[in-house]
Amino acid sequence: MKFEKDKKNVLERIDKSKKGSIDTEIISLVKLINSLKNYYTTSSCSGRIMIIKRPESGKKCDVDFFFSSHSKVNFSEIKNKLKEIPDEQLWFRQESMIMHIACKTIENAQKILDISAKTGLKHSGIITTRKKIIVEIIGSEQFETIIASNKKIYINEEYLKLLVNEANKKMNLNKKRLKKFYELVETIKD
Amino acid sequence: MKFEKDKKNVLERIDKSKKGSIDTEIISLVKLINSLKNYYTTSSCSGRIMIIKRPESGKKCDVDFFFSSHSKVNFSEIKNKLKEIPDEQLWFRQESMIMHIACKTIENAQKILDISAKTGLKHSGIITTRKKIIVEIIGSEQFETIIASNKKIYINEEYLKLLVNEANKKMNLNKKRLKKFYELVETIKD
Repeated sequence: MKFEKDKKNVLERIDKSKKGSIDTEIISLVKLINSLKNYYTTSSCSGRIMIIKRPESGKKCDVDFFFSSHSKVNFSEIKNKLKEIPDEQLWFRQESMIMHIACKTIENAQKILDISAKTGLKHSGIITTRKKIIVEIIGSEQFETIIASNKKIYINEEYLKLLVNEANKKMNLNKKRLKKFYELVETIKD
Repeated sequence: MKFEKDKKNVLERIDKSKKGSIDTEIISLVKLINSLKNYYTTSSCSGRIMIIKRPESGKKCDVDFFFSSHSKVNFSEIKNKLKEIPDEQLWFRQESMIMHIACKTIENAQKILDISAKTGLKHSGIITTRKKIIVEIIGSEQFETIIASNKKIYINEEYLKLLVNEANKKMNLNKKRLKKFYELVETIKD
């Protein structure tokens, strides 16, 4: 009964993510997974385009958002955002969808991995089997690069346009994978 | 006996990687893992700095190396390499070490995941439990960005220097993690 108890507890807990709620782009998938007997989600992000502030220390806990969007972006909104450059390094980053799914058994987890592989969501894997069995679903459609350091911006408008364009293309691909993943999760019967 | 038979077969097989041999930077770790009773490696890369050619299709099988180094790089060697720009998109890419380890049981796999977490090799996970139990070890010290498209280079020398500098810093961090991971694997007794 431990799995069922954990599932109940997690679903009752308020979403503790920074954003304070689940992304609209991924909410139907989260609901679908949570409706299955042997699975529930513990965290999720539908994919995003960000600019992050990264201090020289490089520690993840020090990373701060400078800009973040769960949809495609316009060149002009990014350009405007970059009118003021902070002290920290700035990195332009496009992230794939990511989702953590608790599974009742290793066999249930393997079923999710099979579906991930079919969807092209590479880099997915069981990240722990200790207290819970958690599968991390993540795609390979992502990239990031440094754009500013020591209060100086290192790229010109033309290059920024290219970055925005590539990020938007990958966001499209990511959306297609999300849809395909949803369709395959629908075939799971328990 | 299936695990033992598979291990013998894999270790006897010639390394079929593109490079045709195991990177010198990772060979001692590979040997250490293969000396353990319940583990063997199926593939490995110590981390690298690359420029890759990526056609518009974006299919992984179409990706081709334009430059690749398993050590830190000099700005001038990269600059020289970029004197001729091919038709395909060029992406500057720095990759973390990656290793696939076959494990006899899920408990053995979990032990490797614990060590990965302690080392800071995030994104590690059990990628399959079907025919074999395989753990993928991979770090988060990596990045990539587009630098050329339609035979045109989009970045200037100053920015290329910044990319090279960041890539070399991450290669240093990667090297430290490889060392720490080695030390922790040494504590496994079977």
